[in-house]
Order: sequence, then C-alpha cells, then structure tokens
Amino acid sequence: MDAVNAGKKAAAIRVVDELVKTDQVLGIGSGSTIVFAVEHIAERVKSEGLKLTCVPTSFQARQLILEHGLTLGDLENFPKLDLAIDGADEVDSELNCIKGGGGCLAQEKVVASCAKKFAVIADDRKDSSHLGQNWHKGIPIEVLPFAYVPVMQKIKTTYGGVPALRMAQSKAGPVVTDNGNFLLDWKFDAEKKWDWNLINTELNLIPGVVDTGLFIHMAFKAYFGTSQGSVSTRTPASNGFH
Amino acid sequence: MDAVNAGKKAAAIRVVDELVKTDQVLGIGSGSTIVFAVEHIAERVKSEGLKLTCVPTSFQARQLILEHGLTLGDLENFPKLDLAIDGADEVDSELNCIKGGGGCLAQEKVVASCAKKFAVIADDRKDSSHLGQNWHKGIPIEVLPFAYVPVMQKIKTTYGGVPALRMAQSKAGPVVTDNGNFLLDWKFDAEKKWDWNLINTELNLIPGVVDTGLFIHMAFKAYFGTSQGSVSTRTPASNGFH
Repeated sequence: MDAVNAGKKAAAIRVVDELVKTDQVLGIGSGSTIVFAVEHIAERVKSEGLKLTCVPTSFQARQLILEHGLTLGDLENFPKLDLAIDGADEVDSELNCIKGGGGCLAQEKVVASCAKKFAVIADDRKDSSHLGQNWHKGIPIEVLPFAYVPVMQKIKTTYGGVPALRMAQSKAGPVVTDNGNFLLDWKFDAEKKWDWNLINTELNLIPGVVDTGLFIHMAFKAYFGTSQGSVSTRTPASNGFH
Repeated sequence: MDAVNAGKKAAAIRVVDELVKTDQVLGIGSGSTIVFAVEHIAERVKSEGLKLTCVPTSFQARQLILEHGLTLGDLENFPKLDLAIDGADEVDSELNCIKGGGGCLAQEKVVASCAKKFAVIADDRKDSSHLGQNWHKGIPIEVLPFAYVPVMQKIKTTYGGVPALRMAQSKAGPVVTDNGNFLLDWKFDAEKKWDWNLINTELNLIPGVVDTGLFIHMAFKAYFGTSQGSVSTRTPASNGFH
C-alpha cells in the first residue's frame, strides 16, 4: 500500500472504531477513502454483529454497501441518520470542506445534512489552514445542463477566477452526474480572503445551480491519516490537534 | 373565448406590442398565457419583419417557438437576453411572484435571471396584495428525487404548513420535471407575514433543493388582463396602477 492510501486507511479505521455503534443509521460517503471505511464497517459487522443501516451518497457508495453485504437504506425510509462519514478534497481550520472531486457533492450534502453528526476522513494532504491552500482544482458546482454557460458567466463576473465545465474522460463531452447534471469547477484566487458561508449562499442562489461542493459548518470532526499510519483529529471549536 | 382567456390574451398582446422590438433575444415563458404571446409575436414577425431569437424556458416553450416558425436560441449561444416574458401563478404588490404551477420554474428562473428585463403577464385573478391571497396550491419547489422526504421534513419543521409531493395525472407516481426532478408544493400559512426573500434563500440552501417558484425582485413590470380585455400594468416602485 502506498503512503497516501496508508493515511486514508488509518483515518477510515479510526473513525469507524470511534463513532460507529450498533443500531445506527449510517451515511456512507463516496470516493477512495470511503472504500477503507466500508471494508472496516463490514469487518466489525461480521465480528461484532453490529446492526447498521447504510444510506449511500452516490451510485458508488450504493455498490460498496451491497458488495460488502451491508444493509442498504435510503433517505425515503431513513431521512434521519445518526452519523455520516465522508471524504473531502480539502478541509480548512474550521472544518469547512471542498467536496465534489468525485462529482457526488449534491447527494453527499443531502446525506450529511440529514445526519446528527458528520465526520470527515482524509489523508493529511487534505488538511489546510484555508481552502485553496492545497487543493487547486477549484470548487465543484453542480448545474442544470442548459444553464452552464450563464452560470459560468455570472461566477466569472462576480468573483473572478476561472470556472470551467468538467469534461469526461471515458465519454465524449462533459461529465454527467448521478443526477443527470453538469459540473463546473471554479478555480478561485486562493490568496484572497473569502467568506465561504456567504459564497456558498450566493452560489446556491444563482438560478441553475443545484448545489456547491462547499460544506460549511457541517463537519463536527475531521480525521487525518498520515503515511506512517497515525491519525490526528480536529474539531472546529478547538482548532487544535488531539 | 372564455373570460379568463380574454384576460390572458389582452395582457399578452399588450406586452408584446409594448416591449418586443427587432433584433432582440427574447425569453419565452411557459404556461397558458404565453401561448397568446407567442401567437402575437409570430404575427408581428410576419407583418413587420422583426428579427428575433427566442430562448425557451421549457419543452413546451420550445415547441411553441418551433410551431410558430420563430428562430430558436438557447442559453449556451445566448446567455444574455434583452427581455423575458412569462406568466405567473400569483403576483404580489412588489411584483414578487409564485411560479411553477406548470412545473417549469427552474428553467424559467434561469432564463429570467439572464434577461435585462423580465415582464410578467397574467389574467387579473393572479394579482394579489400578498402571496397566498389568491393562489392556494402553495409554492412549487424542485427537488432532487432522492431527497424529497428529508426536504419535506425540513420545510415542515422550519416553517409549518403542508409540503406535498406533486403527483402526476397521466403517469403513475410523481410529476417528473423537464430536468428529471420532483416537485414539492408547500402550502404555507397565508395569514402570516413572510420575508419571501429570506425564505427563498433558506429554501435554496436546503440540500436537495434545485430551486423554488419564488421569483423575488425579478420582474420589472406586470401586465394584468381583465375579462373585458382591458390591461392594467404595475411596476414595483410605483405600487400603483397605470
């Protein structure tokens, strides 16, 4: 296992050991780090007989749940979750996150918003003092397909930077999300001080925007794994490591 | 022609005569009133040789444009419009509107937001002092299908009233919008004073909400037609009739 994956796995094992308990309804995030979490959840279900219902944040998460023999739930039956665990592309000192590198931001945000607690797991490259410090691909924004040009223009005019339509690699043309929408990636000036809560609100109010990859004041705790396999955790209140 | 249609037609003819000029890029709304507007636009194109590009707000609008031999544009080619004309389910004294009875609110709002001027046309039953006075079907809210239950719960908990999933009449199950989403209709307490700008912002920030049928501070002028064929117009600034 390479160094980055060692960090991801360490964070995933730690969050599952610390927060997952029997009889929970659990939100399962998307991305590469979550794979390790689901593996460890399945191990604990097998060894300890935990009773869990797992609500996916994407098609990928749904497949992971089924492949590992876990009990699948959805938001129609389980609109209130005890805990959601997800990765992130970047986490700032307040635990504000950029998410959506994997394109599943809308369902991820819905699931996180339905959970009593939302925990973020990542390798320690994702740990930043401010958004844009280490993540240079911009903020993912899901848009209705017919609206992508005016939304790009409004973002460019209002905030500057470079909004771009995310292009697919295994099909011609743009990425289409699990919801049938397009994705913009807005590369912003990371040197500037941004009020991300305000930006998230303003972006959501642009007609045609479905949601953004800005997860503001949502995470209660972040787990960062290192290549040596150690894990540091952080809460928004403390702003320090434990 | 019945009395209601007489009012719709009168408003449609008046707005087209007053605001449509050659060389415009024109947003074409959706619904029953717009049919009269497109008919009159087509008449003026034929008789006066107006050069117009028409950007639709829905599949219905697109068909109307094509059926009347008008030039079809889209937001990719024409992200900036000179004028958008659309109907409304209700218009208050500030020209804030409830839209979306026809289910096309998201594309309608994108098109209206791209237009220098957005004009509303309706029969005079839609003219209210406050939202909810005459329109009793609630505020349409477009949601990602997987999220409809938690969104309904959040609306109910935060604002009270009754949010309901809009059911289809020509298929089993819910209405699916032109964007592949579901619609909620939130019946609110019309006796209460609401800050609709704030409500629209808050609803848009609920994860899973695509957009709402609240069009706040968007219309510059409303045209209300009566069953006798007269038209009164109103602007937000004046709050009076002309």
